[in-house]
Amino acid sequence: MDKLIFISNDDGYAAGGIQQLAEMVREFGDVFVVAPDGGRSGASMSISSHDPVMNRFIRYEEGTAARGSLTVWACTGTPNDCTKMAFEKLLPRHPDLVLGGINHGDNCAVNAHYSGTMSIALEGCIKHVPSIAFSSGKMAADADFGYMKGYVQKLVQMALEEGLPLEVCLNVNVPDVEELKGLRICKMGMGDWHEEWQERDHPRGGKYYWIAGYYAPHDSNDQASDTWAFEHGYAAVTPLQLDMTAYAVMEQLKKRLE
Amino acid sequence: MDKLIFISNDDGYAAGGIQQLAEMVREFGDVFVVAPDGGRSGASMSISSHDPVMNRFIRYEEGTAARGSLTVWACTGTPNDCTKMAFEKLLPRHPDLVLGGINHGDNCAVNAHYSGTMSIALEGCIKHVPSIAFSSGKMAADADFGYMKGYVQKLVQMALEEGLPLEVCLNVNVPDVEELKGLRICKMGMGDWHEEWQERDHPRGGKYYWIAGYYAPHDSNDQASDTWAFEHGYAAVTPLQLDMTAYAVMEQLKKRLE
Repeated sequence: MDKLIFISNDDGYAAGGIQQLAEMVREFGDVFVVAPDGGRSGASMSISSHDPVMNRFIRYEEGTAARGSLTVWACTGTPNDCTKMAFEKLLPRHPDLVLGGINHGDNCAVNAHYSGTMSIALEGCIKHVPSIAFSSGKMAADADFGYMKGYVQKLVQMALEEGLPLEVCLNVNVPDVEELKGLRICKMGMGDWHEEWQERDHPRGGKYYWIAGYYAPHDSNDQASDTWAFEHGYAAVTPLQLDMTAYAVMEQLKKRLE
Repeated sequence: MDKLIFISNDDGYAAGGIQQLAEMVREFGDVFVVAPDGGRSGASMSISSHDPVMNRFIRYEEGTAARGSLTVWACTGTPNDCTKMAFEKLLPRHPDLVLGGINHGDNCAVNAHYSGTMSIALEGCIKHVPSIAFSSGKMAADADFGYMKGYVQKLVQMALEEGLPLEVCLNVNVPDVEELKGLRICKMGMGDWHEEWQERDHPRGGKYYWIAGYYAPHDSNDQASDTWAFEHGYAAVTPLQLDMTAYAVMEQLKKRLE
């Protein structure tokens, strides 16, 4: 096996999603996991500027002729720390592919901005390695992600054989449905969150808050959006680019400001 | 004063940058700060999924005919938590403008992805309020940001009077130079980080790591990039959009995958 696949997530190295993803792709090469030592949902692209980061070796399984080896490390940092740590300190060589997930819960639409799973693919992109983030509508800790194996393998095989455009990665969201209708290439949906804080009484006085709420898409009827595809039973594949420049408004801003 | 300006940052409510920014814009309206209770550099768009969040009132200064009031709260969460908390729990009404900064240190180029300062403007964007992130090349805790007041006021006035395009915000990076050459509307530069981890010996065995390293731009010679403008003495204004879809590659991916 000469291909090397790096995987991380934001649910932690022990989560079902990352373990199942690792097994799904071992037939394509050696798999190397560096993932947080616990849950880091909503970590976005954050890095541990104010805390030291430590790594702990978890396990190694030898490969066979048909399946690559599996190496697993846990890291005290964020998902993005895990990716940066892997590239510089832990991976035996530059990887051929970077994968995030499988996330327990979707990262459709503008929510990709908050996602630790997505951050892994974006960091892979910064490092010029083909990168894909996988998320599922199944949220349960014991979820079986076998239903999306065909799509995962199809995308991984394509990325390994043909690569992906430079500084573009894929945000893949697979709904929790009995039978998937197919795969759609989508644009990022727009929307916002409501009732974002749940208030609790602190036993020693004052209030504290948990982040929560519900997401309200602005474009449920836009069939080009990942929101629409996900809500209608398709595996939604959204190509995201590092370059966030709003080119369409540059001339207007130049006139107003330069 | 009927305009309401919300400000947060990632260096904490007590940082010089946010205090100076608040004073620079009080002539435009009431200013309401909800900022982290300490440093949160590199927080990106992260939210506190795993920790409760608390708020603490810091101070209130009454306004005058010429200057708006100032309200300051500290929050235990991330910069993005602060923004979400402000909108739902603390602001007296929907704000007319969202500002991040002034960050002690620049957030040029692809580094906007890691930035907590930028996250405030992106969250403002999600909430459809004109939003601007300000960062300076001056990093010192006691830095005087007076040299960029003219640009801050020009941009704030424009955003208040004319608004900004929907789901587009501004990433403003002002270099630490004696005399600024002007303002340039730029695109997001590309680049990556090297030697990202500094290793230390733990007193009780093993290694731990601090994130560090240096940023290597790929496009120092591209005069359209914010990197070039910043390095050549201009205030770099980069319009960023929420929608990260890589539209240019969608057809190609549809052919390969659908």
